[in-house]
Amino acid sequence: MPEISILNEQDLRALVPLDREAVDCVEEAFSRLAGQGVVMPPVLRLDIEDANGEVDVKTAYVPGLESFAIKMSPGFFDNPRLGLPSLNGLMVVFSAKTGLVEALLLDNGYLTDVRTAAAGAVAARHLARPDARHAAILGAGVQARLQLQALTLVRSIETVSIWARRDDSARELAQWAEELQLEARLCASPQEAVEAGDIIVTTTPSRTPLIESGWLTAGQHVTAMGSDSEHKNEIAPSVLREVDLYVCDRQSQCALMGELHHALEAGLVSAEASYPELGAVISGDQPGRQQAGDITLCDLTGTGVQDTAIATLARKRASATGAGASFTS
Amino acid sequence: MPEISILNEQDLRALVPLDREAVDCVEEAFSRLAGQGVVMPPVLRLDIEDANGEVDVKTAYVPGLESFAIKMSPGFFDNPRLGLPSLNGLMVVFSAKTGLVEALLLDNGYLTDVRTAAAGAVAARHLARPDARHAAILGAGVQARLQLQALTLVRSIETVSIWARRDDSARELAQWAEELQLEARLCASPQEAVEAGDIIVTTTPSRTPLIESGWLTAGQHVTAMGSDSEHKNEIAPSVLREVDLYVCDRQSQCALMGELHHALEAGLVSAEASYPELGAVISGDQPGRQQAGDITLCDLTGTGVQDTAIATLARKRASATGAGASFTS
Repeated sequence: MPEISILNEQDLRALVPLDREAVDCVEEAFSRLAGQGVVMPPVLRLDIEDANGEVDVKTAYVPGLESFAIKMSPGFFDNPRLGLPSLNGLMVVFSAKTGLVEALLLDNGYLTDVRTAAAGAVAARHLARPDARHAAILGAGVQARLQLQALTLVRSIETVSIWARRDDSARELAQWAEELQLEARLCASPQEAVEAGDIIVTTTPSRTPLIESGWLTAGQHVTAMGSDSEHKNEIAPSVLREVDLYVCDRQSQCALMGELHHALEAGLVSAEASYPELGAVISGDQPGRQQAGDITLCDLTGTGVQDTAIATLARKRASATGAGASFTS
Repeated sequence: MPEISILNEQDLRALVPLDREAVDCVEEAFSRLAGQGVVMPPVLRLDIEDANGEVDVKTAYVPGLESFAIKMSPGFFDNPRLGLPSLNGLMVVFSAKTGLVEALLLDNGYLTDVRTAAAGAVAARHLARPDARHAAILGAGVQARLQLQALTLVRSIETVSIWARRDDSARELAQWAEELQLEARLCASPQEAVEAGDIIVTTTPSRTPLIESGWLTAGQHVTAMGSDSEHKNEIAPSVLREVDLYVCDRQSQCALMGELHHALEAGLVSAEASYPELGAVISGDQPGRQQAGDITLCDLTGTGVQDTAIATLARKRASATGAGASFTS
C-alpha cells in the first residue's frame, strides 16, 4: 500500500511562491514541449449546464521529469451566490516510472494561478523589449495581480496602467501595484490602458474583444491569457494579422480555445498555417522578437506541461522539507 | 476551506462490496445513460511509452446524482518486475452542484473492479437466458473472479468452465469457484470452455481473438469485458455478424476500443449502423433477448457513468457511517 503525501493550499502557498524559480520551471517545461517525447493529450472537458459548471482536465508527460500531474479544474459560475468561489481544483501527482500516486495537491487552483502567471513572465521574457518599463493590465482579478507581479520578475517595470470593468477591483489592483513599488494609473477605457503599455496583459473572461484593430503601436508586446474556452475572446481577430509576430503556447489548443480560434473562424488566418509556439521560441528553434519596433502577441490557453512542471516542483519541495500529511492508500 | 473525506482501499472494500446493491447502482447508471442529460466526454488517454505505461481518465455527469467522479486509472505494465501491481488509480468525487471536491477515493482500482464486474451482472441479467446455469470464464485474473461472483448474483449458476493461459491461475480461479459453491472444471482450450457455457465471460487483455467464428450455439450469451483499448480483441470480428443481438455499453466508445472496433476495421459491420446500448435495453427502449435460442453478445469497455455511480454510492455510505479520514484543503 503506497504512501501518498497530501498537501493543502496553505502548504502549497508556502512551498511554491510566484518567484523566478517558478518562472524558470515553467520556461523549462515549455522548452521541453518544443522537443521530443512530450505527450500532451487534448483537454478533457465536462460541461454541467444544469449547474452552470464545467470541469477541465489537463495532463502531460514530460520526459526528464520524474512525475506527471493530472489536474482537475472545476468552474461553477453560480457559486458566488452561495458564498463559494467559482474556481477550484486539485492536482494528482503520479510517478512517471510506475504510475503510482505520489501526492495529492489540494491547492484549490493556487498552483494553476502560479503556473499561468509564470507563463506570462516567460512570454514577456522572450517576446517583450528588454527595456520595457510600462505595463498595462486589462482585468483586475487574481490573474491581473499575479501577471503584474510576474512581469516584475523579468522586466524592470516602473508603471502600470489598469483598466477593469469594476472600478473597485481596479482600485484594489492599483493598491497591489503600489505594494510592488509600481506607479499605478487607472484608465477609463481599455484603449487608454493599451496605449500606455510596453507590455499589455489581458486577463479577463471577456467574450468580446477588448483590444481592437489599429490600437497597437511599434514595440509593444501583448500577452492574451484570458481565453481558455471557445467562447472567450479578448483580441479582435484582425489584430492577429496586424502584429509582426504571433506566438501561441500550443497551436492545436489555441485553434480550439485561444485567440487563434476566433481569427480562424473569421477566416482571417489559414487553418493550414503553422505558428511558432512559445517553447520553440525559448529553445531558439523559432525566432522571437527581431527588432525593437516589432509588435508581438502571445496567445496563452494554459497547457498540461505547465501543470506537470509546477506539480513536480511542489512535490520535490514537499519531499525535501517534509511538508504536508501522509496517507496510506 | 472545504472539508474533504479521504477513503483508502481498506475503507472502500468494507463500504462497497460486490453485491446486489452495487449491481443495481450500476444498472441504474446505465439506464440513465440511455436517457436525457448525461454528459460523458471521450476518455482522456495519456501514453507513456518510455515506461510501458498508460493512464485513462474517465468521467460523467449523471443528472439526479448529487456527485460526479473523475477517475484516473494508470496501467504500468513493467511494474510486476519491480514487485508492484500494474494497475492502480483513484477517483475524485466532486459536488455536481458546486464543483467542490467532496472525497478522494484512494481505491487502487478496487471500485473499478466492482463497477466492471457489476456491469457484467447487469449484462447477464438483461441478456442471458433466465434459466442459465453454466458459466464459462476465459482468463483468470481479478476480473475473472469478480465476473463469476457477479453472475451468481443474477443467475442460479451451478457450474463454471475455466480456461486461462496460465494453469496455476486457472486452478486458483477453480478454488474460488468452489468457495462460491460452484462446480468448477478446467478446460484445455477456449473452445472447450465456450461450448460448456450458457453465459461466457471473456476477461483477458488478449490482442488476438479467443472466441472464433462458428463456436457459439443457440441460447448462449457472451459478455466481452476485456477489451478497453484499440489493440485488445477477444472476439473474432465475424462473430458480431453471427449473433442474434449485439449490445454495447457505449457505441462511440466500443467503436474506438471495444470488439466493435475490430469488426469495423475488418469492414464486417457498417460505421453508420446504430447498435443497441445496454442502457436502452435496461430501460426497454431497445429489445433485449427475444427467444431462448438467441445468441447474444455484450461488448463492455467501461464507462464514466459507472464510475460516477459507484463513487457516489461509496461517498454516500462513507458520509452515513463516518468512515475515512477528513482533511481541509
